[in-house]
Amino acid sequence: MQFARLKNLVPAVWLLCLAYPHACADEGMWLFNDLPKQYLQEKYGFTPTDEWAEHLMLSSVRFNTGGSASFVSSKGLVLTNHHVGAGTLQKLSDAENNYREDGFLAKTIADELKAPDLELNQLVSIDDVTDRVNAAVTNDMDAESAFAARRAVMAEIEKESLDATDLRSDVITLYGGAKYHLYRFKKYTDVRLVWAPEAAIAHFGGDADNFEYPRYCLDVTLFRVYEDGQPAKIGHFLRWSENGAEDEELVFVSGNPGRTQRIYTTEALRYLRDKRLPRLLSYLQRYEVMIQQYSLGGPEQRRRANSDRASVQNNRKRTIGMLHGLQTPAFMDRKQQEESAMLAKLENRADLKDTKQAWKEIASVQKERAELLGVWTDMDSKLYRFANQLVLMATEDQKPSGERLREFRDSARESLEQRLFSPAPVYEDLEIAKLTDSLSRFVEDRGGDHPLAIKVLDGKSPQERATELIRGSKLSSVDVRKKLAEGGADALANCEDTMIQLAQMLEPEYRRLREIRDRHQEIERQAYAKITAAKVALEGASGYPDATFSLRLAFGTVAGYEEAGQWIKPWTTLGGAYEHQAAHDAEGDWKLPESWIEHEADIDKSAGLNFVCTADIIGGNSGSPVVNRAGEFVGIIFDGNIQSLTAAYFYTDQICRAVSVHSSGIRETIRNIYGAGHLADELGQ
Amino acid sequence: MQFARLKNLVPAVWLLCLAYPHACADEGMWLFNDLPKQYLQEKYGFTPTDEWAEHLMLSSVRFNTGGSASFVSSKGLVLTNHHVGAGTLQKLSDAENNYREDGFLAKTIADELKAPDLELNQLVSIDDVTDRVNAAVTNDMDAESAFAARRAVMAEIEKESLDATDLRSDVITLYGGAKYHLYRFKKYTDVRLVWAPEAAIAHFGGDADNFEYPRYCLDVTLFRVYEDGQPAKIGHFLRWSENGAEDEELVFVSGNPGRTQRIYTTEALRYLRDKRLPRLLSYLQRYEVMIQQYSLGGPEQRRRANSDRASVQNNRKRTIGMLHGLQTPAFMDRKQQEESAMLAKLENRADLKDTKQAWKEIASVQKERAELLGVWTDMDSKLYRFANQLVLMATEDQKPSGERLREFRDSARESLEQRLFSPAPVYEDLEIAKLTDSLSRFVEDRGGDHPLAIKVLDGKSPQERATELIRGSKLSSVDVRKKLAEGGADALANCEDTMIQLAQMLEPEYRRLREIRDRHQEIERQAYAKITAAKVALEGASGYPDATFSLRLAFGTVAGYEEAGQWIKPWTTLGGAYEHQAAHDAEGDWKLPESWIEHEADIDKSAGLNFVCTADIIGGNSGSPVVNRAGEFVGIIFDGNIQSLTAAYFYTDQICRAVSVHSSGIRETIRNIYGAGHLADELGQ
Repeated sequence: MQFARLKNLVPAVWLLCLAYPHACADEGMWLFNDLPKQYLQEKYGFTPTDEWAEHLMLSSVRFNTGGSASFVSSKGLVLTNHHVGAGTLQKLSDAENNYREDGFLAKTIADELKAPDLELNQLVSIDDVTDRVNAAVTNDMDAESAFAARRAVMAEIEKESLDATDLRSDVITLYGGAKYHLYRFKKYTDVRLVWAPEAAIAHFGGDADNFEYPRYCLDVTLFRVYEDGQPAKIGHFLRWSENGAEDEELVFVSGNPGRTQRIYTTEALRYLRDKRLPRLLSYLQRYEVMIQQYSLGGPEQRRRANSDRASVQNNRKRTIGMLHGLQTPAFMDRKQQEESAMLAKLENRADLKDTKQAWKEIASVQKERAELLGVWTDMDSKLYRFANQLVLMATEDQKPSGERLREFRDSARESLEQRLFSPAPVYEDLEIAKLTDSLSRFVEDRGGDHPLAIKVLDGKSPQERATELIRGSKLSSVDVRKKLAEGGADALANCEDTMIQLAQMLEPEYRRLREIRDRHQEIERQAYAKITAAKVALEGASGYPDATFSLRLAFGTVAGYEEAGQWIKPWTTLGGAYEHQAAHDAEGDWKLPESWIEHEADIDKSAGLNFVCTADIIGGNSGSPVVNRAGEFVGIIFDGNIQSLTAAYFYTDQICRAVSVHSSGIRETIRNIYGAGHLADELGQ
Repeated sequence: MQFARLKNLVPAVWLLCLAYPHACADEGMWLFNDLPKQYLQEKYGFTPTDEWAEHLMLSSVRFNTGGSASFVSSKGLVLTNHHVGAGTLQKLSDAENNYREDGFLAKTIADELKAPDLELNQLVSIDDVTDRVNAAVTNDMDAESAFAARRAVMAEIEKESLDATDLRSDVITLYGGAKYHLYRFKKYTDVRLVWAPEAAIAHFGGDADNFEYPRYCLDVTLFRVYEDGQPAKIGHFLRWSENGAEDEELVFVSGNPGRTQRIYTTEALRYLRDKRLPRLLSYLQRYEVMIQQYSLGGPEQRRRANSDRASVQNNRKRTIGMLHGLQTPAFMDRKQQEESAMLAKLENRADLKDTKQAWKEIASVQKERAELLGVWTDMDSKLYRFANQLVLMATEDQKPSGERLREFRDSARESLEQRLFSPAPVYEDLEIAKLTDSLSRFVEDRGGDHPLAIKVLDGKSPQERATELIRGSKLSSVDVRKKLAEGGADALANCEDTMIQLAQMLEPEYRRLREIRDRHQEIERQAYAKITAAKVALEGASGYPDATFSLRLAFGTVAGYEEAGQWIKPWTTLGGAYEHQAAHDAEGDWKLPESWIEHEADIDKSAGLNFVCTADIIGGNSGSPVVNRAGEFVGIIFDGNIQSLTAAYFYTDQICRAVSVHSSGIRETIRNIYGAGHLADELGQ
């Protein structure tokens, strides 16, 4: 077919489906304490009980590195995506053992490998603390004071909760600032790698197939959480569905969508379209080329940069999809119409009239942001980031917890230290390559005559300076970082570490920019709170809040879709992977790993490998379990199709789909390709 | 050695060598009618005679696609780089015959393949027409009028010359505008491909080895010029040196360096550093990623994009080198000091005092340019470029030749039509991929609400719109282009071709920007003419002019250099290529082609493959013959080492080197690897 090979990133069906908030059936990333029970009952004849929801919530896990997962056995097995675990796989690998590329299998419990710096969070309770947070902020406060007051009360609530429960306690901002909930998490910090397939099958089809469908990826990895050195005993874990979900079956996704902008005003979207996303895209393309260049250095360089490369390619492809969506005039026109309609309604509501100011405040924040786009201090270097944290911490720790930059509050200290003292390897040559590029970009953005650019380069070329900075720093040693952290301001005062000195030089600028960012955040929180309140007043319901990398429930049905006149079936099978390989002459990223070739005859090729459903997801949902009405595990989210990349701004179930690995394919391959019958048996038990 | 693997892009030795114009021995891209005879005699005891110079000039050839070459036989053989001929190799290839990748050999004259759109220029005479050009411009003219008057007189001179001699006649602007020379060229438009090696050895080591040394590339290709359907009889061609050049031997490079900015004021360099090069780099990185994405489509897509990809990688690496050079504070400091010193001298010279205004004028042009950085109309699409030319031509042709946009003047018509009516293939899917990216970039740069962005997208997403525009155009047909060109304004008036319509829509904006650009050019010409005159008045000599993609003579010695404490020998050998392959485990771009493996035993491995010399070159010099005192061919320039990337701004012979393919290696491989003894015998005969 003429159009068959060309996919429209931005389909015309969007236009059918832009009304807010419920034009499209299965929309929503719902709070576990505010599920759309009535809607589910009416449409699907299913009402999630509190027990059902609690079990699912407690079976769900958040990777604090950005991703979702679930408990799938009573002995602490955690299932997530290969690409969510990739950072850890990379950190556990070295020149001899490349687990990220070649896969890993712990034959026994004793062989499981401890992740250097993973923290897993299990949400255990939710409390609405909106009133207490808002009470701390009074009308006469300017944005700076309001931000400080809000930060202080949030830190106070969190500290109280931590002291009382010993649980990680985070106050989450919802509806852009209309609500504040206290989330308590049980933390798991002893997390061990159990099994990972080869990258070749986890990301079968590579960058080309990414965000595409049909798909054939075994994008999964198994970890296990430990307590007191033993596999943790897990009360709530997901049972394994015998055969997975059927076509048109209702399924649920329990995970942590990262960030959506559905509440955004058109001015905020314009800022994204014309300023933020173009700049981000340019950065990603630059980073991608830089990492490729570094990788040309040899097989070991390629290995060191693997995780970085996959991640930046994924981000670049997603950003292009999001940007092209925003650039499509029809999209912005409709958003503008909805906004105008709401503003018109406000005209007739004397009680809500001052809400209109909110739009203006948000617009003015975008304007200031646009002017600051090239003004930054965050260098692409692990050592720099360590240095920056150490330098800030020395000052922050002299203040009361509530007055510190939020990440330094007492209740978050344990998590911060786990990252800061991570024993994960730091590669000198990769650090130099990244920092060289960052320094050059810094000078480009500021201009070569800017005093800070001159100070940062210190009279040298970007590469000479980067080399000097990385080689002159001892921060790759955990002990050195620990000593500097313990020593505080005194230890840093005359520190000769080059990276510490760079971070100290940039500290005032970092703090200046942080203050602006915090002020913007506060202005937007107040403004979006007003807009949300007006929406509730006008429409009678608040719906679900934008994603905030906290636990949500989405739902939908397993469903194929039509693309360019062709019907795309919802499922692929293990056998399909071999056909997909053949269709691409086993070239490049379409080459199945040896294990799959060797065991081709041993597997049930009809077992499902991937499937799509209409659930409303976004980045951060990667690794989310998909369950059926019975709460059984039927799959694990790992991607969206390319048409779903605009989900940040709105949802449609016309052709946008969430892509999952199928429960049957996981069990079948673990048993019959990877020879891990003991793990296959443990799944769901 | 600790530092051995890290190369400093910007070496400290620069600082030793920044004085202008003759601190470094072998500096200069000299005009053939103004050679540094005295210097050559004093330093090397060699005075080039007029006959010597004329023979070399007439043996040199310019590729109008951007590159240099030389006649190497009496029967019209032309030797250039593989990467200079790559565009033509690409155009001659198709899905079945991939000459660019696999190489080509015409067994007989009858097998030689006609290039679709190549024009080769042989410079035959130079006349100084400065007085006549300047006489047309009077003091009371503003920049627009001055530009128009200058354009008119240049077109007039060219037309007169063309009519009188039937030779391509171009007035070349030299010293930024201080001098104007009329260059007459004999044109060759029937150019045929004779032999090309595989891309794997032409670019051995690929992107990683590019701009590096030691090097092992057979970056050469043979064409043949024809007249009246027969191999042209060539009076001036280069004899082949028996053994090439020796260490420390004086050699000469005759070629067409593209563009240098050594005369630039510091404000002009600041503009490059802070605005132009960062933007260019961002564009190149974006283009590189886009082309890679397109290439993932399959082997045929990879083939179609090969030439684009190699070219953009080369440009990206060069641009980073140039940018990092400018960002190095010591460089700009020295330029500033030199400029301040000259300005101080001007204070004491009443006769030159008003020269100072020139710096201000140049600065104001940079400021305007910076403001226009995101304002452009040139889409990355062959069809769009055809459309743009056709649309402009229809209007321009109604004016007298001297009043037209310069490329439409009568004397340049033949060359323009050769490009416009080129039968080279246009690939629909590649066009869509490129135009999609261009449209998105256009919207990014203008902002989504800009009226022109709205018009250009016409309500569609970038991809939908690009698809519609490419599929709705018939301009890939040469006949259609010819008919539209013949039909002129009438044919275009109601033309339904989508690309013509897009070009028509953008025409007013194109003309607006072109006028600004032309005005800037005129202001800078006048300003640099004043600065050059002042320089001559203060220093007594004008030296050589900045490069202008016209024929120049450079010279230097074959010379190794020290890098990171290690002595780099000036030569590599054929045998070294096999060692280089082994050192990289024959991985990726370090895999020699089959022909080299097959004939490893048949060649003299001690024959030279590449060598370096101190001659002052830059992009455009690619393909330049390197000759000895006797005027014999000893090599062909194909690259500079990475330290030479800043040659646009200044020259140093400390470690900057031009990299050539060695005459012996060319002859040896043509005979004993490629089995073309008849061609090896023809070289130099």
